[in-house]
Amino acid sequence: MENFSFYSPTYFVFGKDTESQAGAYVKKFGGTRVLLHYGSNSAEKSGLLDRVKKSLDLENITYVQLGGAQPNPRSGLVYTGIKLCRQEKVDFILAIGGGSAIDSAKAIAIGVPYEGDFWDFYQGKEVVEGIKIGTILTIAAAGSEGSGGSVITKEEGMFKRSAGGDCMRPLFSILNPELTQTLPPYQTASGSADIIAHILERYFTNTKNVEVTDRLCESLLLTMINEVPKVMKDPNDYEARANIMWAGMTAHNNIVGVGRQQDWASHNIEHELSAEYDCAHGAGLAVVFPAWMKYVVDHDVNRFAQIATRVWGCQMDFENPKNTALKGIECLEKFFVSIGMPTNFKELGAKEEDITKMANVACFGDNAVGYVGNFVRLNQEDIENIYRLML
Amino acid sequence: MENFSFYSPTYFVFGKDTESQAGAYVKKFGGTRVLLHYGSNSAEKSGLLDRVKKSLDLENITYVQLGGAQPNPRSGLVYTGIKLCRQEKVDFILAIGGGSAIDSAKAIAIGVPYEGDFWDFYQGKEVVEGIKIGTILTIAAAGSEGSGGSVITKEEGMFKRSAGGDCMRPLFSILNPELTQTLPPYQTASGSADIIAHILERYFTNTKNVEVTDRLCESLLLTMINEVPKVMKDPNDYEARANIMWAGMTAHNNIVGVGRQQDWASHNIEHELSAEYDCAHGAGLAVVFPAWMKYVVDHDVNRFAQIATRVWGCQMDFENPKNTALKGIECLEKFFVSIGMPTNFKELGAKEEDITKMANVACFGDNAVGYVGNFVRLNQEDIENIYRLML
Repeated sequence: MENFSFYSPTYFVFGKDTESQAGAYVKKFGGTRVLLHYGSNSAEKSGLLDRVKKSLDLENITYVQLGGAQPNPRSGLVYTGIKLCRQEKVDFILAIGGGSAIDSAKAIAIGVPYEGDFWDFYQGKEVVEGIKIGTILTIAAAGSEGSGGSVITKEEGMFKRSAGGDCMRPLFSILNPELTQTLPPYQTASGSADIIAHILERYFTNTKNVEVTDRLCESLLLTMINEVPKVMKDPNDYEARANIMWAGMTAHNNIVGVGRQQDWASHNIEHELSAEYDCAHGAGLAVVFPAWMKYVVDHDVNRFAQIATRVWGCQMDFENPKNTALKGIECLEKFFVSIGMPTNFKELGAKEEDITKMANVACFGDNAVGYVGNFVRLNQEDIENIYRLML
Repeated sequence: MENFSFYSPTYFVFGKDTESQAGAYVKKFGGTRVLLHYGSNSAEKSGLLDRVKKSLDLENITYVQLGGAQPNPRSGLVYTGIKLCRQEKVDFILAIGGGSAIDSAKAIAIGVPYEGDFWDFYQGKEVVEGIKIGTILTIAAAGSEGSGGSVITKEEGMFKRSAGGDCMRPLFSILNPELTQTLPPYQTASGSADIIAHILERYFTNTKNVEVTDRLCESLLLTMINEVPKVMKDPNDYEARANIMWAGMTAHNNIVGVGRQQDWASHNIEHELSAEYDCAHGAGLAVVFPAWMKYVVDHDVNRFAQIATRVWGCQMDFENPKNTALKGIECLEKFFVSIGMPTNFKELGAKEEDITKMANVACFGDNAVGYVGNFVRLNQEDIENIYRLML
């Protein structure tokens, strides 16, 4: 195990009706003037926004609003939010939504006290301060409610890049699984694929002797495999929604990924797809991950056989472990299909002719380092080959 | 799943040589005048205390010392510590040791600003403030390095009781597995039994549909079963020590126990043993847990069969699930024996004639409520029966 530090100071409030406590938590954590930042109209339509406003009113906390955070959130809205927060002397941002609203809120939060362009942080500049953030989660997916990271797409060039820092961790996150019951099936499934991908990015490692994090990762995968089909069948299954929601947070606050090298090639390969075609990030990952697995399986057949046996319940083929490894990959593919996820470029709306360009941007675009991944370092040619496996 | 809140704001610093950063972390978290609180002589003899002092000197942080925290830490030393902190205007307590030193430090920390008797908090008074705490862990066991709880034994009457609160959570905890390599085998095994017990107390629940926390608990048990025998064989196996240390924290900061009723009967039953005979808490738990399991197995045979199959790899007997349930209990017993843990009263130094008294104190002693446990509520007679199963 490698040396590490782990810090997850977010106060999580989990369960039914918990959004009614939003005002009390903003007050507890010192907010007096709030930006309510959210995405689509659904927060308005469902009445969630009104309930949150009411809870702020009860604590005499004032607020301004900024909606419009979209999937694969954009830099344009971040600039608008920064300007608004400065103008209105906002001291607390309450994000209402999924990873998009939360990541956008984080970008605004670090942009407000910074004199330069907030994009600098997404190009590697160290994050040292930001205004306070809280979240009300409406989809189990990105894990941003418990992480210090944020991914934003810069509209000029459509670069999708990430930033991170301890001050970007939400002070509190309200997780009410009921709020996820009205999601369209495709969004539920995409969110679930994103959670599974967060676990797999940590699972595929070259670090040896990491039994505790291996087992923790496997336990979350087993949870997802058991619970996601339940919500696909019955969107109102509160209990399954709750299990998925806690798994989604746990998968990405890094408690299951400490002390080991992590991969993240598939996320980088996917980012070009969602930047280019604006597809759902999780759906993109459902296409990328099996392809990536097939491309790198020979690097450590036994690790693939381990996940196949422990998670997918495959019988170990001791004469030919690669058979087991490949069966595990097949199980993952079938699982994604069973929950309605796409399997190829066509279903994502992606085009073969863009492969070279996307692989090039993944390797050499804004702030890229010439390769992606750590389990296996992949150059532009490798990435092109992986994209081709998705045709 | 039940509604819950989860808060684990401790900054964990994990790995080799990390104790040399103690001074830097005390400074980062605002400490200027430190109480170094530790237990036996081993921190002094091993040179650990000197290394920590050196790191404080480097940051120009002054300190006073208080050693002598013993297993099953006592109220007497807490009073001494409170007096010393007030006298010396200490603003930060750095505990160096295991659960005993840390729990003692927590009691001192909440006692300093409180005008009354600190024992009030161990009788149910709400904890609202305390001076800051950091820890340097030297044994994987109690999980106090990541929890908001503390257990202290009151010398008058030998009552062993607990207190808890968010301000009792360490601001930082330094976890260096190397520091555990010099532990005697019996202490390593007792600590491991304590970790296993923390998981089992959470596992046995009447709350339904808790797949994610079930799976997380199982993953930690699987880790312990795999790693503990390695350190019993080779005390210097750093990697196994590291896996156990992270499992020990994760088992008790409650991330694997949220949203579900927890049991805690076995801890209460054991507390009377370690209060009465001063045996190692973990060793006591190794004797109590299998007895408790046999006594309550019929309450939910399938839950016992689940742990037997998922954790111990038993074949499910579908005609008679209780056979599987009992096999799982047998596996746990054999595991404890294999790592040198006691199995009965005699090996613990406990006496049959004290059974009635201990069961009475567990039910009706200082701050007790007339029963123990939630999975099955156990009255005095039940507890006596469980003690008798340990003869």
